[in-house]
Amino acid sequence: MIGAEIQILIKILSKMPGLGPRSAKRLALFLLSDGEGQMDPMIAALQAARDNVSVCHVCGNLDTSDPCHICTDTRRDPGMLCVVAGIGDLWALERTGSFSGRYHVLGGILSAMDGVGPEDLRIEQLVRRVKEGTIEEIILALSATVDGQATAHYIADRLSGLHVKITKLAHGVPVGGELDFLDDGTIITALKSRA
Amino acid sequence: MIGAEIQILIKILSKMPGLGPRSAKRLALFLLSDGEGQMDPMIAALQAARDNVSVCHVCGNLDTSDPCHICTDTRRDPGMLCVVAGIGDLWALERTGSFSGRYHVLGGILSAMDGVGPEDLRIEQLVRRVKEGTIEEIILALSATVDGQATAHYIADRLSGLHVKITKLAHGVPVGGELDFLDDGTIITALKSRA
Repeated sequence: MIGAEIQILIKILSKMPGLGPRSAKRLALFLLSDGEGQMDPMIAALQAARDNVSVCHVCGNLDTSDPCHICTDTRRDPGMLCVVAGIGDLWALERTGSFSGRYHVLGGILSAMDGVGPEDLRIEQLVRRVKEGTIEEIILALSATVDGQATAHYIADRLSGLHVKITKLAHGVPVGGELDFLDDGTIITALKSRA
Repeated sequence: MIGAEIQILIKILSKMPGLGPRSAKRLALFLLSDGEGQMDPMIAALQAARDNVSVCHVCGNLDTSDPCHICTDTRRDPGMLCVVAGIGDLWALERTGSFSGRYHVLGGILSAMDGVGPEDLRIEQLVRRVKEGTIEEIILALSATVDGQATAHYIADRLSGLHVKITKLAHGVPVGGELDFLDDGTIITALKSRA
């Protein structure tokens, strides 16, 4: 007996990552009850984002301009390129404020399981950017998972022969991490890379 | 360096119940990356819900018509009225398909802590509905919490003297519940109300 419009809203909300049928219902009720007037700002924000945000054709970032602010920022080092799997990773790196180069968003990682091949990622564009000649160092900031490392390996292979230095994020003990709770692989890597 | 429109969207999403800054970012990225084309249906569903759904002035339910489908459904027993705290509770009861009367949504429960008094709830409207004379039984379907029971008590008080039978949901062992994991209060109540 829930009205059709409410049911459609709940169905669409429940497709969002991290939301199930229960939290979607809760969210729909919150928006519709509108005690705090969230519905109009929500619709306006979604429309503004849809109408103004696009993918940067250079790096794959999402921004209100194309090329994006990072690609056109002349204070950033054009010789340093950080390769990330997704925009979430780019945001995480930007949050630290400790990287002043530019980015290249792959749009995923290679995965035999999920059927993601090199042609599904922005690897060809990466090779082209490197061939332009201004990039001196590529930092492969990919996850320390099997697929992430396989992707890093594949990219390193594709870039071999081009005059570019390839580095990776260091592996080791996370800052604030207790040794007792760390997996053996991390401890072994941290020992080997000790400094 | 995240574009303004994206930041606004993340901020609004993170105000939703059950979503924090992290899940809001994930949601914004999901909608913006738009691989599965969720942005337009989402905006359309929100707009349709905003434009078509309103509060039923009789019972406080949310529906596309006012009075709502439940209030105007002549197959439903006009003599039975189920009092619930919120629309989520109404939906939960409707899901069971085992109640054929009508509802009265209070819009919350009395709470000294949160400063919710009788005048903040739809209690006056409930008294008026009862005074109209067609209602024979009021089921107080409120949570088995201190505030829920205090609200039930207050309503029963307000309705005393009017010719209406007041009942409550039974307390006891949830169906499928293991005794071992139940709190003592529930076990004691279940023992007392044994049948």
